[in-house]
Amino acid sequence: MKTNAGRFFEDFVLGETIRHATPRTVTSADAALYTALYGARFAVQSSDAFARAAGYPQSPLDDWLVFHVVFGKTVPDISLNAVANLGYADGRFLKSVFPGETLSAVSEVIGLKESSNRQTGVVYVRSTGFDSGGEAVLTYCRWVLVRKRDPAAVARAEHVPDLPKAVGAADLGGAVPRIDGAAYDLALAGSPHRFGDYAAGEKIDHLDGMTVEEAEHQLATRLYQNTAKVHFDQHAAKDSRFGRRLIYGGHVISLARALSFNGLANAFHVAAINGGRHVAPVFAGDTVYAWSEVLDTAEVPGRSDFGALRLRTVATKNQPCGAYPHKTGEGYDAAVILDLDYWALMPR
Amino acid sequence: MKTNAGRFFEDFVLGETIRHATPRTVTSADAALYTALYGARFAVQSSDAFARAAGYPQSPLDDWLVFHVVFGKTVPDISLNAVANLGYADGRFLKSVFPGETLSAVSEVIGLKESSNRQTGVVYVRSTGFDSGGEAVLTYCRWVLVRKRDPAAVARAEHVPDLPKAVGAADLGGAVPRIDGAAYDLALAGSPHRFGDYAAGEKIDHLDGMTVEEAEHQLATRLYQNTAKVHFDQHAAKDSRFGRRLIYGGHVISLARALSFNGLANAFHVAAINGGRHVAPVFAGDTVYAWSEVLDTAEVPGRSDFGALRLRTVATKNQPCGAYPHKTGEGYDAAVILDLDYWALMPR
Amino acid sequence: MKTNAGRFFEDFVLGETIRHATPRTVTSADAALYTALYGARFAVQSSDAFARAAGYPQSPLDDWLVFHVVFGKTVPDISLNAVANLGYADGRFLKSVFPGETLSAVSEVIGLKESSNRQTGVVYVRSTGFDSGGEAVLTYCRWVLVRKRDPAAVARAEHVPDLPKAVGAADLGGAVPRIDGAAYDLALAGSPHRFGDYAAGEKIDHLDGMTVEEAEHQLATRLYQNTAKVHFDQHAAKDSRFGRRLIYGGHVISLARALSFNGLANAFHVAAINGGRHVAPVFAGDTVYAWSEVLDTAEVPGRSDFGALRLRTVATKNQPCGAYPHKTGEGYDAAVILDLDYWALMPR
Repeated sequence: MKTNAGRFFEDFVLGETIRHATPRTVTSADAALYTALYGARFAVQSSDAFARAAGYPQSPLDDWLVFHVVFGKTVPDISLNAVANLGYADGRFLKSVFPGETLSAVSEVIGLKESSNRQTGVVYVRSTGFDSGGEAVLTYCRWVLVRKRDPAAVARAEHVPDLPKAVGAADLGGAVPRIDGAAYDLALAGSPHRFGDYAAGEKIDHLDGMTVEEAEHQLATRLYQNTAKVHFDQHAAKDSRFGRRLIYGGHVISLARALSFNGLANAFHVAAINGGRHVAPVFAGDTVYAWSEVLDTAEVPGRSDFGALRLRTVATKNQPCGAYPHKTGEGYDAAVILDLDYWALMPR
Repeated sequence: MKTNAGRFFEDFVLGETIRHATPRTVTSADAALYTALYGARFAVQSSDAFARAAGYPQSPLDDWLVFHVVFGKTVPDISLNAVANLGYADGRFLKSVFPGETLSAVSEVIGLKESSNRQTGVVYVRSTGFDSGGEAVLTYCRWVLVRKRDPAAVARAEHVPDLPKAVGAADLGGAVPRIDGAAYDLALAGSPHRFGDYAAGEKIDHLDGMTVEEAEHQLATRLYQNTAKVHFDQHAAKDSRFGRRLIYGGHVISLARALSFNGLANAFHVAAINGGRHVAPVFAGDTVYAWSEVLDTAEVPGRSDFGALRLRTVATKNQPCGAYPHKTGEGYDAAVILDLDYWALMPR
Repeated sequence: MKTNAGRFFEDFVLGETIRHATPRTVTSADAALYTALYGARFAVQSSDAFARAAGYPQSPLDDWLVFHVVFGKTVPDISLNAVANLGYADGRFLKSVFPGETLSAVSEVIGLKESSNRQTGVVYVRSTGFDSGGEAVLTYCRWVLVRKRDPAAVARAEHVPDLPKAVGAADLGGAVPRIDGAAYDLALAGSPHRFGDYAAGEKIDHLDGMTVEEAEHQLATRLYQNTAKVHFDQHAAKDSRFGRRLIYGGHVISLARALSFNGLANAFHVAAINGGRHVAPVFAGDTVYAWSEVLDTAEVPGRSDFGALRLRTVATKNQPCGAYPHKTGEGYDAAVILDLDYWALMPR
């Protein structure tokens, strides 16, 4: 068999390292496409001149673009037969990625747990993206519910990894040069609010909404060379539970991040992913809104140039976020599609 | 309040200068996306080799792409609460923009006039785009009808600027190097017709039509970091007057310009905008056609290498332009969506 | 008349050479857009680092992207009034094209044959793409059925060229540097199967499906500056035989090629086109699947670094390819949309 139908739960081996296929050279074209897909306006990623003034050699690629490219490589080996993407933990952006860099990815199987019905199992992986010099640019854990090929197959080992609830402040900002706060132009950046202007508990409605089209999420997901069938094949989807193509969860993350500019314009870098949940499926035609809560603020040891905001960004579909919809007594508000917990950096 | 809900009429101050957010480095990727969005075929902008032979150091970015990027920056400060974009005047392309350049924008409030119903007012601005060296690349005036936050608010000042009906011939072509007419290859450019072959009064039906999709105008408008809500939010639009997302007027201008290649292939540079009106809204699914009339021809002082055509390009929706639809006794023909008056240059 | 309404059958002259308009500089942005449009994952074209290790100076542009750009230039002169694109023969990729290169195209009319009903005629052309140094990068023959302007017009000459059924193995691979098989990393390339692992008669179902949206094929076809009206104008199309815009046949070829990665991941270069037929029209909303048969395997004289697979790739719409649908007693299976015969190279 020369084709890849994807791994099933019983194909994964605890401790195994998987080198993923198709390294990809990312360029300024990926940055432009990313702007066209999400309308991001963070100045460090938009302007080489602004980035240079702030301390970078040039604009780095958007952090989530790097995430999506690395994530995309893992799909054919990890999640082609996934039923659901369950969660993320301990994600850290380790090194800036600039146009011209070639990214590749490796995953280690760090946990396996068969479901009680024996039809599926949860696979835990730590995936790491590398640049062409072999340095890690991003690492994160995720766990996915994967089908078994044969329900009778016996799981070889069972292990649930102990993952941190949040990345510690000392582990933030390694990807960031020393930021020159005096040269960081707040007017050009789009907001006068620096790190010190935000406080834990503060909630921000990002106001704007963005409707997603089939062509858009398909273009994005292919750009990331993410091959999950559920995003692309309407002929198969018409007979599925939803009857429609599902939008890649990362597309929603990037929309929410772009919307969050309105209120968090100086959050110039996503430094870490503490956790995240794709609460409900999103389909073409849905309009995405978002709001954020500052969960915590932290100083980063040795870095007087910026501070870190721990943010929960919640995205909804077809419901503006003036009421900050999140959980209700019974679970999530019906409009919620994404609940993301991450650290972002802001100049001090 | 850390979010930007946009300025209302009473927030503008006559004479005020507004530095707009998010400088943007434009690259060859913007040029490629522009080609993908409109199918432009003007040889100077399409081929570095052709541009070099003609006299440029390399292909400059399309003039309207530069306009859209500069325009996009002004939206969050000027027209987020605009009811309508009323007009343009005295637009001049001052300097070629090449890939790698970073663009930023500044607007000056040059006029204010409250509407008689006191619900809205007209804001006149002169917006100027700058390169990273601080040189102006484009300047233009536009006026927009903006909502008042509070109808009872008293306008601080009232002034209607005196704007020129057309840019003078002496002000054209500053962005253009000396064009080598002998090296300008008419076959590669796609037409044997030079400046001298056009005469005032001549009408040209550009023949082709282009249907617009939601994903296309959204990609374009985000590429320009234009954040006007009416283009992106179907959830909000469904309860609006039209029930649909409106397509950015600049998207229609670029479609009309690309269509105008068929008949004006050697109009290699848009040098100035005399005036323009978005006559009717355009929605996804509409097919755009265009025709042009040569309003005037002019020699440019000191420039024997090219001449200037003053053109009216009219775009329609869902109606081919063989009959040159424009105004009727009662106003515009129902099919007309754009009426644009500009100067374009052609080799002599 | 300054506009181009396209040539009719009687406008073509046997032996005539047509230099096509609008040279185009292709860049890494075209490569990124190509990835976004088709999701291609061939490592040589995706990663500069991989390409360098294999023997290239950097990633070359995808072979079909080069084909589409060259093809697009020929459309305004050759096929604007085409009823159908009938076939291809003797297509050879002669030189790698790298980002920054400027492509132009020339066609020679090599055959003319009026249809018996005298309403149309078949025009045979050999089209060749050149780089800015004047070297040929691609050459191919195609024949199209073109309308006559005047059925009474007398054809000036009639000649049906003798075209080869297939390109010979000795004519393959001129565009390819010496491939370093030891440095060609099969894990990164996505498959352990080299040239020697494939045998004539082998059939491969590429498994995955891809649904096409209007915005996608329009973006692609405009990127190639292909101006054929049938792809873009829904207002005109609504009254046509199909009532819809037709998708450019080359878009389907690129989708099939991208899908073929799953089973042919090491087929790193399309070296030649033996023949091809667009069997049935494809519309937005259709889901494209593909399968391939190895028609032949060949060693290339003087090249021990790779071998050549002669492949038939068949694409279908809205029907997975597990049953390898192709011809039935009466012609093609109703689901077949493309039948392409080409040579691809694989490391040995």
